[in-house]
Amino acid sequence: MYQQHVVIDGLQYSKWNRDYFMMLHASGIHAVHVTLVYHEDARTTLTRFAEWNLLFEQHSDLIMPVYSAEDIESAKASGKVGIFFGAQNCSPIDDEIGLIGVMRRQGLLIMQLTYNNQSLLATGCYEKQDTGITRFGRQAIAEMNRVGMIIDMSHSAEKSTLEAIEISERPICISHANPLFAHKALRNKSDTVIKALAAKGGILGFSLYPFHLPNGSQCTLEDFCQMVAQTADLVGTDALAIGSDLCLNQPISVLEWMRNGRWSKVMDYGEGSSSNAGWPDSLPWFTGKSGMENIYNGLVKTGFNEQEAGKIIGGNWLAFLRHSLPTRQ
Amino acid sequence: MYQQHVVIDGLQYSKWNRDYFMMLHASGIHAVHVTLVYHEDARTTLTRFAEWNLLFEQHSDLIMPVYSAEDIESAKASGKVGIFFGAQNCSPIDDEIGLIGVMRRQGLLIMQLTYNNQSLLATGCYEKQDTGITRFGRQAIAEMNRVGMIIDMSHSAEKSTLEAIEISERPICISHANPLFAHKALRNKSDTVIKALAAKGGILGFSLYPFHLPNGSQCTLEDFCQMVAQTADLVGTDALAIGSDLCLNQPISVLEWMRNGRWSKVMDYGEGSSSNAGWPDSLPWFTGKSGMENIYNGLVKTGFNEQEAGKIIGGNWLAFLRHSLPTRQ
Repeated sequence: MYQQHVVIDGLQYSKWNRDYFMMLHASGIHAVHVTLVYHEDARTTLTRFAEWNLLFEQHSDLIMPVYSAEDIESAKASGKVGIFFGAQNCSPIDDEIGLIGVMRRQGLLIMQLTYNNQSLLATGCYEKQDTGITRFGRQAIAEMNRVGMIIDMSHSAEKSTLEAIEISERPICISHANPLFAHKALRNKSDTVIKALAAKGGILGFSLYPFHLPNGSQCTLEDFCQMVAQTADLVGTDALAIGSDLCLNQPISVLEWMRNGRWSKVMDYGEGSSSNAGWPDSLPWFTGKSGMENIYNGLVKTGFNEQEAGKIIGGNWLAFLRHSLPTRQ
Repeated sequence: MYQQHVVIDGLQYSKWNRDYFMMLHASGIHAVHVTLVYHEDARTTLTRFAEWNLLFEQHSDLIMPVYSAEDIESAKASGKVGIFFGAQNCSPIDDEIGLIGVMRRQGLLIMQLTYNNQSLLATGCYEKQDTGITRFGRQAIAEMNRVGMIIDMSHSAEKSTLEAIEISERPICISHANPLFAHKALRNKSDTVIKALAAKGGILGFSLYPFHLPNGSQCTLEDFCQMVAQTADLVGTDALAIGSDLCLNQPISVLEWMRNGRWSKVMDYGEGSSSNAGWPDSLPWFTGKSGMENIYNGLVKTGFNEQEAGKIIGGNWLAFLRHSLPTRQ
């Protein structure tokens, strides 16, 4: 049964307000990995934390901050939705390695080494040339391993991703991306990456973002579950999870921010185009409160047993967080 | 016996290095309130935290971070010196009330509303006119009460201090200052302030900074203990503690930074003068590892019993931290 399992969405960046929290609550989701920043520097990241602290204060009946796997269990037990933070860029640390520990203490549990461009640490998936992990990147990986900040390579290029998996002494995550075999996109991941990730105990969160799905906005629940099943054939079920990349109720300015930050003078349309500049049409089976439950039922229908479906819907995220978050002495 | 008591110094800003930590360790001090910043803004405060995290990492056999009263007990039990942080200015929050909670989570347990000048929150003790707690200051006090960040009025003017005590729903501290009756200085505190502080459960940390002592650098241990005894006559022993203001091994550039920050084009000599611009001569009985033990023995010799001396040397700080640090729901 869906309700008995812990349910975790590995990435969302929706318009956060009380109505949305009530919908999350009704959906049976116990915890969400929330994107805190896309391009913000260290100082602005503090403001993002402060804004969320106010939401926690104002909606303490519905949501609570998550700093550990145990907090997710508390959220589930208390009927609240747990929120844990990740950065879709290494911008929160500016150029300062000591800010990894500082941001980890603040509650940044997960950090991408890059967004779509070259960063100080590695190469993003939209660049033409991928030179892998940089000098700073090698130290940053070691420091993230030490303080228990999870490395996320969702937006990074292939060589950078394989090197991160290799260099890191702890498993890493790809919180929101799909296999290339299901849909060709710069953001999706090769079999080589998925196998290397899984072989070292990493986790892959399947995305529900239409630009990354087979058949785009026409992707059916069956198409999605088939993709998950084929990935299970490749690497088993321990590494599989959901990272929906749900960006509900967001104005187009947010999409433009993600694509352009402050680096681009020319409008960058990302995976869209000037004639298709807006958000993709949402999936009818993954909008509103039934999304995760639909996936669970779809997985069981596809041939996963209830235990496997439970792992994919949240159990694997919980286990991954439990061994990834503690500080190393 | 000195060794059986918990020993806490309510303020230091020395040159932090392994030798110094070893001296602290040998002194029997269990925890120190360390000044993290004098004038630094929010972003630079993050760097100060990062620098200390590196010290904690490199000297983990000698020191440990303190985030709660229980951590001080752990420090004592494990034979390490606990370090807890305060700001001598409200500069770490910039102009943003949400940064109070953010800095509290980072480990800023104590914050002065002002240094010597007018701040966004209140008036510093060197200003000619003291208009008390500002509009922002009132909200900041409420927010500090809520998140369990201790209000410190060591450097603030009289009206501001009395208003802070009045407005705050939780006791406040004056971590490092002496009674005016013992020595006249802009930094020292009137009977009115000391009584109001103690009446609401606050704590006063007696300073060992020669410019704030009777007879300056010629102040004897007996002079110092006499000052403590007279204060006990005024308000009893529960509100009394030590906040040495020890600034050992610091170059004159640090003293200039404290006095001038980035606000003054003209060299400000503070309590010195152009012909007396440097650090005051240190007290022979409060330099090196025997300082706190000398005070303890001096207090007992002056007439305090061992329990009272133990409270003053650290017990009162521990009790104050225990009830001041938890978040209010």
